[in-house]
Amino acid sequence: MSKALSIFDTTLRDGTQGEGISLSADDKLKIAKKLDQLGVHYIEGGIPGSNSKDIEFFKRVQELNLSAKITAFGSTRRKDSVAEHDANLKRMLEAGVQATTLVGKSWDFHVYTALQTTLEENLAMIYDSIAYLKRQGMEVIFDAEHFFDGYKNNPEYALAVMRKAEEAGADWLTMCDTNGGTMPHEVHDIVSVLAGQVTTSRLGIHTHNDCELAVANAISAVRAGAEQIQGTMNGYGERCGNANLCSIIPNLQLKMGYEVLEPEQLKQLTNTARYVSEIANVYMPINQPYVGTAAFAHKGGIHVSAILRDSRTYEHIVPEIVGNRQRVLVSELAGQSNILSKAQEMGIPFDPENESTRAVISKIKDLEHQGYQFEGADASLELLLREANGDLKELFVFESFKMLVEKSAGRPVISEAFVKLKIDGASIYTAAEGNGPVNALDNALRKALITYYPGLQEIHLSDYKVRVLDDKDATASKVRVLIESRNFENSWSTVGVSGNVIEASWEALVDSLRYALIGQTKREDYTEIQSSTRGLVNH
Amino acid sequence: MSKALSIFDTTLRDGTQGEGISLSADDKLKIAKKLDQLGVHYIEGGIPGSNSKDIEFFKRVQELNLSAKITAFGSTRRKDSVAEHDANLKRMLEAGVQATTLVGKSWDFHVYTALQTTLEENLAMIYDSIAYLKRQGMEVIFDAEHFFDGYKNNPEYALAVMRKAEEAGADWLTMCDTNGGTMPHEVHDIVSVLAGQVTTSRLGIHTHNDCELAVANAISAVRAGAEQIQGTMNGYGERCGNANLCSIIPNLQLKMGYEVLEPEQLKQLTNTARYVSEIANVYMPINQPYVGTAAFAHKGGIHVSAILRDSRTYEHIVPEIVGNRQRVLVSELAGQSNILSKAQEMGIPFDPENESTRAVISKIKDLEHQGYQFEGADASLELLLREANGDLKELFVFESFKMLVEKSAGRPVISEAFVKLKIDGASIYTAAEGNGPVNALDNALRKALITYYPGLQEIHLSDYKVRVLDDKDATASKVRVLIESRNFENSWSTVGVSGNVIEASWEALVDSLRYALIGQTKREDYTEIQSSTRGLVNH
Repeated sequence: MSKALSIFDTTLRDGTQGEGISLSADDKLKIAKKLDQLGVHYIEGGIPGSNSKDIEFFKRVQELNLSAKITAFGSTRRKDSVAEHDANLKRMLEAGVQATTLVGKSWDFHVYTALQTTLEENLAMIYDSIAYLKRQGMEVIFDAEHFFDGYKNNPEYALAVMRKAEEAGADWLTMCDTNGGTMPHEVHDIVSVLAGQVTTSRLGIHTHNDCELAVANAISAVRAGAEQIQGTMNGYGERCGNANLCSIIPNLQLKMGYEVLEPEQLKQLTNTARYVSEIANVYMPINQPYVGTAAFAHKGGIHVSAILRDSRTYEHIVPEIVGNRQRVLVSELAGQSNILSKAQEMGIPFDPENESTRAVISKIKDLEHQGYQFEGADASLELLLREANGDLKELFVFESFKMLVEKSAGRPVISEAFVKLKIDGASIYTAAEGNGPVNALDNALRKALITYYPGLQEIHLSDYKVRVLDDKDATASKVRVLIESRNFENSWSTVGVSGNVIEASWEALVDSLRYALIGQTKREDYTEIQSSTRGLVNH
Repeated sequence: MSKALSIFDTTLRDGTQGEGISLSADDKLKIAKKLDQLGVHYIEGGIPGSNSKDIEFFKRVQELNLSAKITAFGSTRRKDSVAEHDANLKRMLEAGVQATTLVGKSWDFHVYTALQTTLEENLAMIYDSIAYLKRQGMEVIFDAEHFFDGYKNNPEYALAVMRKAEEAGADWLTMCDTNGGTMPHEVHDIVSVLAGQVTTSRLGIHTHNDCELAVANAISAVRAGAEQIQGTMNGYGERCGNANLCSIIPNLQLKMGYEVLEPEQLKQLTNTARYVSEIANVYMPINQPYVGTAAFAHKGGIHVSAILRDSRTYEHIVPEIVGNRQRVLVSELAGQSNILSKAQEMGIPFDPENESTRAVISKIKDLEHQGYQFEGADASLELLLREANGDLKELFVFESFKMLVEKSAGRPVISEAFVKLKIDGASIYTAAEGNGPVNALDNALRKALITYYPGLQEIHLSDYKVRVLDDKDATASKVRVLIESRNFENSWSTVGVSGNVIEASWEALVDSLRYALIGQTKREDYTEIQSSTRGLVNH
């Protein structure tokens, strides 16, 4: 068995079947480029002719000259017809690709229920379609839909389907666990049987995550002889998703000794995963294996002191190998060593023996006691540490804000905010509406600052969380607000705590903008900026 | 090998190590109750004496008389000391539990690096601690930290640790993949070796998800002889999380034929998972296996038509077995049976053939589509159903509210609310201050109602949660507010959704008071009540 494997990405086809995932042709092209840089071997682009996005994608992707093979997806010919006249097959041939993924049935139940034809006709549909595509010079990946369910129900027929596809010249026989219900040991046993019967074609695996086993099933198939792995970035896909390549690739390469990507490419994994999540506009769980922001985050005090001695104590790999990094979370469970290592991580010099160091540590503890939580608010912590270190200049002098929400029967709710500040001695008073109170405050605050700091245009708030800290008397107790903000490159989180949700939000908002402006200098040529940004700030 | 397995839930201990997860003592008690109803066999509550929340939890959980065994977690005695004098072990014994989880080292590297002691002393620490706990009549679960890494590095020592724990009388030897870096086939091989050497203790497994294999590793261990599975609800836990019991339980029971829960309990799985996610205030991914809202959602046109012929074509199990349901994303088809069974549970008669039944079901679906979620808000659902059934009278006619928050530098923030209503044709206009905007609204609303409904005096809001529903544009997106209210006997939860957090809170507040007043009649002797309640409402 060769130790080299081929990675087949279907983010652009099967991934878009996921609820809430919708990609434009532009999105697809951007992702294809990024996947090519990562070094995947096949990129399934879509279904030619099924919709205008896919038609545009197949046309424009040719101009990118990618190293990866682009593949087009389609079904076997219609029942009781001729492959040469099949409109679907024709569109696959006209897509301008070198490889095609042809899906066919291998579960007898599906042949009866979904296709409503005979087992013999299904074999003929598979044979004819593959043979036709091969005659046209295509590489053919045969996706045997429901192969595992089919095998469990009627092993002879499932194997007959694969033998027929091999006979027709398929380059790859891909076993699909379409419904995601198969266990890893079953995958191992069934793949082993097929591997013993195949001679010219090579084996591929396509799994789904309905039992939270898609990654395990893909690995299990590889151990039994599969050489091509189909999956998607971040595991996007129908229902519970497809097999997540962001976990499969490092598992195969770092844990099992297969050759998958170059080490330099593997370092792009985290960055690629986050890029795809941004383009797809889908929330990435912080605890996603290998690439999530919490994948190498440490919270417990004992763990942290061990990690600082030797990171192998609580890390299964060096995070930088996949382009991620270690984070030490500051929380009530831990102490001074966490804060110092955090400062070190941020490049802020702190001497543990110093008076000001002790002062900032005791301030942080005091804030935690009041309900602040910095493990989810790195940026607020960094502001505190930089402030203690004398690194920060004041952005503005706060004078006041007012916030008004008004609702009358039968009318939409109205939110307005008014902000009064001083910048360099000049009074600034702004008013803005918003979709909600925090949005109104955000709008009014930016309106006040943006003429001085045009860099704020790039920033948007990407998440907003509120947590009540003491549930004894809910609406009269303290609340903690966490705000996550982003620009094109980064994201950062800030925190505010108050008995008043609006005041807590204001604190977190101000921290977010202060953090964004670290290192940025104020523009002094107000007039010029004012005229150029008026369209933006005055709406 | 017995086919009965025991489920050990550590959501309340290891789960809280997850970034962004923080549970109060009240939260922990609520979750413990719910886990007990689900039927898990062990509930690890925390670390006795480590903080005030855990102390309170262990004290109050005894009053709940749960069927599950509550366990307390702690480390082996300190090096070079005596178990009988160890403060940690003493606190575990004083926690009022019948079972303890004792964690010890089984990786020689950790003995040197983290404990900084000898291999012999570590064996003695394990032996002494277990023997001492056993002498005090405790059931002891020995958690061998880093067992798999330890075995790979020094198999003789890792096995010697387990033999020593067995010799000391440990009931369970739990193999922990603490760093989450082990592959399922390695787990199988290593567990098999240990299973061949153990005679009196039984084996447990504790896995982490750093390679997206925690579920697969737990299953793999069970196949090799483990009989107790440690994990958390929704896979909460440090870094990439612990093994997800919400996937492991149905995999073992539905796919592998083990006895884990009663079928009626398994139907509570989805509801329990969502409840825990609401209490922990952590976003539940829609594509979470078995219990996510997209776990049985179908988008593809071909899939949908096959699903309508026979749902086995694209579903690996019947969703109702785990309390979930099928969703067809293009057309609305599911859910009615859930709502009807809910109505029955509340004692509201509904005829499924009736026009008004169909109307309320379609209204609920529409609300869910807008972001309402009734799983955590039974009271709001009951109001909708009673309204449809004609059981509810209108409390008041809403005219308007206004809410003002004002903050000036150096002064405390001020929140005021103004509410205008009509009750029996009489206009009522109230103003109130509050600690925050929702408290001000609550005060103004009660001030308007309390003279008519003095029963409202007994009610207070006990929890308030806000969740952003769409993180694309945080402060301008929809929010869902959940409010929990209590009187002396009961608690109930209500929901509101809006683009505006204040409006959403208002909705949930109004529902809370409407629910509280079901069955209560209006007092007509205003004057008398006004004088007696003035002290209460005018502050």
